[in-house]
Amino acid sequence: MIDFNSMVPLYQQVIEQIMIDIEHNKFDKTRRLPTEDEMSRNYGVSRITIRKAVSELANRGIVVKKQGKGTFLKTPPMKKVLNNSAMSFTNLCHANGKVAGSKVLEASICIPEDTDVIEALGLQEGEKAVRIRRLRYADGKPLVIEDNYFPLKYSYLIGIDLENKSLYSYLETEQGINIISGHLTMRLIRANNNTAHLLNVQRNTPMLQLWSTNLCENGEILHTCRQVGYGEDFDFIIR
Amino acid sequence: MIDFNSMVPLYQQVIEQIMIDIEHNKFDKTRRLPTEDEMSRNYGVSRITIRKAVSELANRGIVVKKQGKGTFLKTPPMKKVLNNSAMSFTNLCHANGKVAGSKVLEASICIPEDTDVIEALGLQEGEKAVRIRRLRYADGKPLVIEDNYFPLKYSYLIGIDLENKSLYSYLETEQGINIISGHLTMRLIRANNNTAHLLNVQRNTPMLQLWSTNLCENGEILHTCRQVGYGEDFDFIIR
Repeated sequence: MIDFNSMVPLYQQVIEQIMIDIEHNKFDKTRRLPTEDEMSRNYGVSRITIRKAVSELANRGIVVKKQGKGTFLKTPPMKKVLNNSAMSFTNLCHANGKVAGSKVLEASICIPEDTDVIEALGLQEGEKAVRIRRLRYADGKPLVIEDNYFPLKYSYLIGIDLENKSLYSYLETEQGINIISGHLTMRLIRANNNTAHLLNVQRNTPMLQLWSTNLCENGEILHTCRQVGYGEDFDFIIR
Repeated sequence: MIDFNSMVPLYQQVIEQIMIDIEHNKFDKTRRLPTEDEMSRNYGVSRITIRKAVSELANRGIVVKKQGKGTFLKTPPMKKVLNNSAMSFTNLCHANGKVAGSKVLEASICIPEDTDVIEALGLQEGEKAVRIRRLRYADGKPLVIEDNYFPLKYSYLIGIDLENKSLYSYLETEQGINIISGHLTMRLIRANNNTAHLLNVQRNTPMLQLWSTNLCENGEILHTCRQVGYGEDFDFIIR
């Protein structure tokens, strides 16, 4: 495997070998790399060479060092397609082989204060709307805070099981609503105190804000939704 | 303007008044707010009340405090539409009322090493390509590092004035190439040392990576391009 007579530096040969081992799924389910000692024995090179190779793999974003736990292959980012179909978080998780979860933070009738929300729903000043705010999990990890506003006629949504049901599949299958995607904008933001607390990250952690407005088939506004999260775990496929 | 008998707290009245002044463009071209003393006199309230109002406006992202320089209205983010048309950086700046600039970092014939580039262009191992790497400015501020790879037949691009010409408009008007948008993916990343140096930001500053591949009308690959930058100065409009 390692050729001591080659012009290629040893640590680069080790990197290539590790990359081949990754491709052939030679690492266990925890995605943990062997210790430096084990790798030193496996590849027949010094620990210093192993350290240099692993450090280079960390620089390239292929492995991640976790304090006191060892070095792990980086989990590949989840992929989210941002095309003209309005995909639910539940389906997003499913498409990435993960289990979606929800925690309801608020489900209420309220008078929206945010002018962007008022504008998106076309409300009069002081007009009420339905607010459903949920923390969304993928495989138990909090990933996105989702703040939904619906026109008042959707107040029945407050009565359904919002933790275990997909809102979209409920609206589609049980209410017969064909959801049409409207506007979608994306912005890089930093976590404020509340966001950081909910998503279990440090304050000011960079993340993305996705603001979407979706319609019913007849062109009526269905809801406007501000999602905050995603962060560095995602690849967005735009076209 | 300020009603001392109102139930509305003074600092909230000041916030509302400042918001009205912003709407009516009462601030000068530098977008600098008056000093606390000046505002205290203008609005007839204490400096403490002014401080509380400005602090709240900063929290809402409406103003930005710059150390030693004062408080400024935040520059509205540039808008970039990510639809099915391949828009040049030059046109993006133009659409946002800014002047585009370029600095060539590299213009060469090279053998791409990045497997993503090799795959995108459909190259054989060791096959050469044209690399054009530029730093892009809007109104003199470095915003995006653009790393382009073209098939070798576009080597004539190395000879043109890449600092003052839009590559896209050159290809379209002078070469008669109708550019068709292909893939586009987006990822949240952090600036490494080199990126931070070029864009004049701190290391690890969050920014976006846009990876696009565009085609000629006949379906041939025109180029693949990795853009790094944009950061918090941008709103991306996806649909």
